[in-house]
Amino acid sequence: MDEPTIKTVSVVGTGVVGRSWIQVFIRAGCQARLYDKDPDQVEKALAWIEEDLEQDRKEGMISAEVMSARLSLISAHEQLSEALDGAGYVQESGPEILSEKNSIYTDINRAFNPDAMIGSSTSMLDITDITDGLEVAKRCIVAHPINPPHIIPLVEILAGKETDPEVITQAMEFLESVGQKPIRINFYIPGFVGTRIYAALLKEALSILESGAADVEAVDSAVRNGLGLRWALMGPVAVADANADGGVREYLTRFRHAAIDLMNNLSPTPSFSDDFIEELGKQTDAMVGDVPKDKIRRWRDKLIGKVIKFREENDPLGLTK
Amino acid sequence: MDEPTIKTVSVVGTGVVGRSWIQVFIRAGCQARLYDKDPDQVEKALAWIEEDLEQDRKEGMISAEVMSARLSLISAHEQLSEALDGAGYVQESGPEILSEKNSIYTDINRAFNPDAMIGSSTSMLDITDITDGLEVAKRCIVAHPINPPHIIPLVEILAGKETDPEVITQAMEFLESVGQKPIRINFYIPGFVGTRIYAALLKEALSILESGAADVEAVDSAVRNGLGLRWALMGPVAVADANADGGVREYLTRFRHAAIDLMNNLSPTPSFSDDFIEELGKQTDAMVGDVPKDKIRRWRDKLIGKVIKFREENDPLGLTK
Repeated sequence: MDEPTIKTVSVVGTGVVGRSWIQVFIRAGCQARLYDKDPDQVEKALAWIEEDLEQDRKEGMISAEVMSARLSLISAHEQLSEALDGAGYVQESGPEILSEKNSIYTDINRAFNPDAMIGSSTSMLDITDITDGLEVAKRCIVAHPINPPHIIPLVEILAGKETDPEVITQAMEFLESVGQKPIRINFYIPGFVGTRIYAALLKEALSILESGAADVEAVDSAVRNGLGLRWALMGPVAVADANADGGVREYLTRFRHAAIDLMNNLSPTPSFSDDFIEELGKQTDAMVGDVPKDKIRRWRDKLIGKVIKFREENDPLGLTK
Repeated sequence: MDEPTIKTVSVVGTGVVGRSWIQVFIRAGCQARLYDKDPDQVEKALAWIEEDLEQDRKEGMISAEVMSARLSLISAHEQLSEALDGAGYVQESGPEILSEKNSIYTDINRAFNPDAMIGSSTSMLDITDITDGLEVAKRCIVAHPINPPHIIPLVEILAGKETDPEVITQAMEFLESVGQKPIRINFYIPGFVGTRIYAALLKEALSILESGAADVEAVDSAVRNGLGLRWALMGPVAVADANADGGVREYLTRFRHAAIDLMNNLSPTPSFSDDFIEELGKQTDAMVGDVPKDKIRRWRDKLIGKVIKFREENDPLGLTK
């Protein structure tokens, strides 16, 4: 990881997404100034971070010195203006409701430092709507992570209509400098790229399940023992490109007609009926057992962290960057 | 890996898919009797296997003894009947054309051992059509891998209308005993499960690219630095289940309306026009460089093998089985 290009960051909204962003920033050595309109959320975030780092320390992944150095970078503030003070970058992770986002950005607009950049964790809203009519709009972007961002590096970056072009460039530089993988979305589409691709996969998987053509264990195995093993290393275009000696041109040309037929034949949106969800729940319980979900998440997150490290160490061709 | 439940296997069709199946069987200690109506294909398969094992040996992944033991299990035959002789399981990987498959199964029908089971690598055809009117139909199933099967363990198993139920059970037991992960498909749907889910993801990814909302580097990064990192460990239902403390029931109920809206809003099938494919090719070249595709495939396959081993060693909850 490089030196962070911005040393002081504000985290506004410290729920499940915000608290993980705090870990991104303190891991990189940034000061993190926290604010949440509900002070309980800040307390909970601090407790979770301490517990998570303490587990890392117990497992030998970080030293006690590193843990206390990271924690010392955090400060909690009762006023938004205090939390914004001196921050060159603000990560906003408030509720995913337009009126609440508007209210947060109206408050930020009152206190904002004209040189600061503000990234919203919004997964579905348009930053143009969120910042409508506010001077701060020119410094605002979407910076949407896949949760949890301290484990999964992807961040989707999207400008609003008023955003200064330099904000995009500088925010991407900053997020790269703290170890994230920002990608540029050129214009607003619902769900941006990540959630759309996720929804496409989930739609087909759930529809197959609802049709009865396969059960949960089979569909999940098709991904974890099949397709997903490549997607942890290469995206779909690189996978297609490697599948033919002539690359993606040969592959897509050869399978053009079969692909069009199959894509046109894909399943409709599943019903999400209560009965279907309950049936999925039963099959999932049989597959997963009664391990608490937070225990599964911690196992998953630590293993993903190790897989990323492992692929970095085994990437002579530079294909997993 | 267990002892294989069947000791002698026939591999009919030794192209890119068949040659990888040979590696599955000899790795598990099965005798592999090869036949291809084009003897050149058998020669090429043997040369590829020797070269691949030799590279594994050079990299210290297998010893010279293991390499020669595996190679000694292979025999090539000029007649199909010879290749089938004594084989308890036959893996057929002929061309993906119904008339050619019919012809292969008509030949198999003449020579078949009534106790043998025959699995077809077909990715799109229905085994009922392939074996229409043949006595051998009752011993035949689809056993569709994701290429290459010696790296990616998923095998989709599907009965035809005439298939004896015990063939399904015994074939799945056998494939598990040679280290594969068979899943059961309950009835024919085009593309089964794996190719449908793959097509769903590729459809949305390519449509986003064609719309100009993001470029190849961004879309691929969204998968390899985002979504794909979870899918190498857990399927989509297990991912959804872990995302809420109340499991998949809570998750799908909470996001039901947003999910339906987004799924209904997903993109149409891309054009696959020559211009679009050429534009993708240019962007992909810029991302991947001019590394030969076979070198990329070998890197990808060896790394997937290591990721599978790594997750087996880090799976105290048994979730990646």
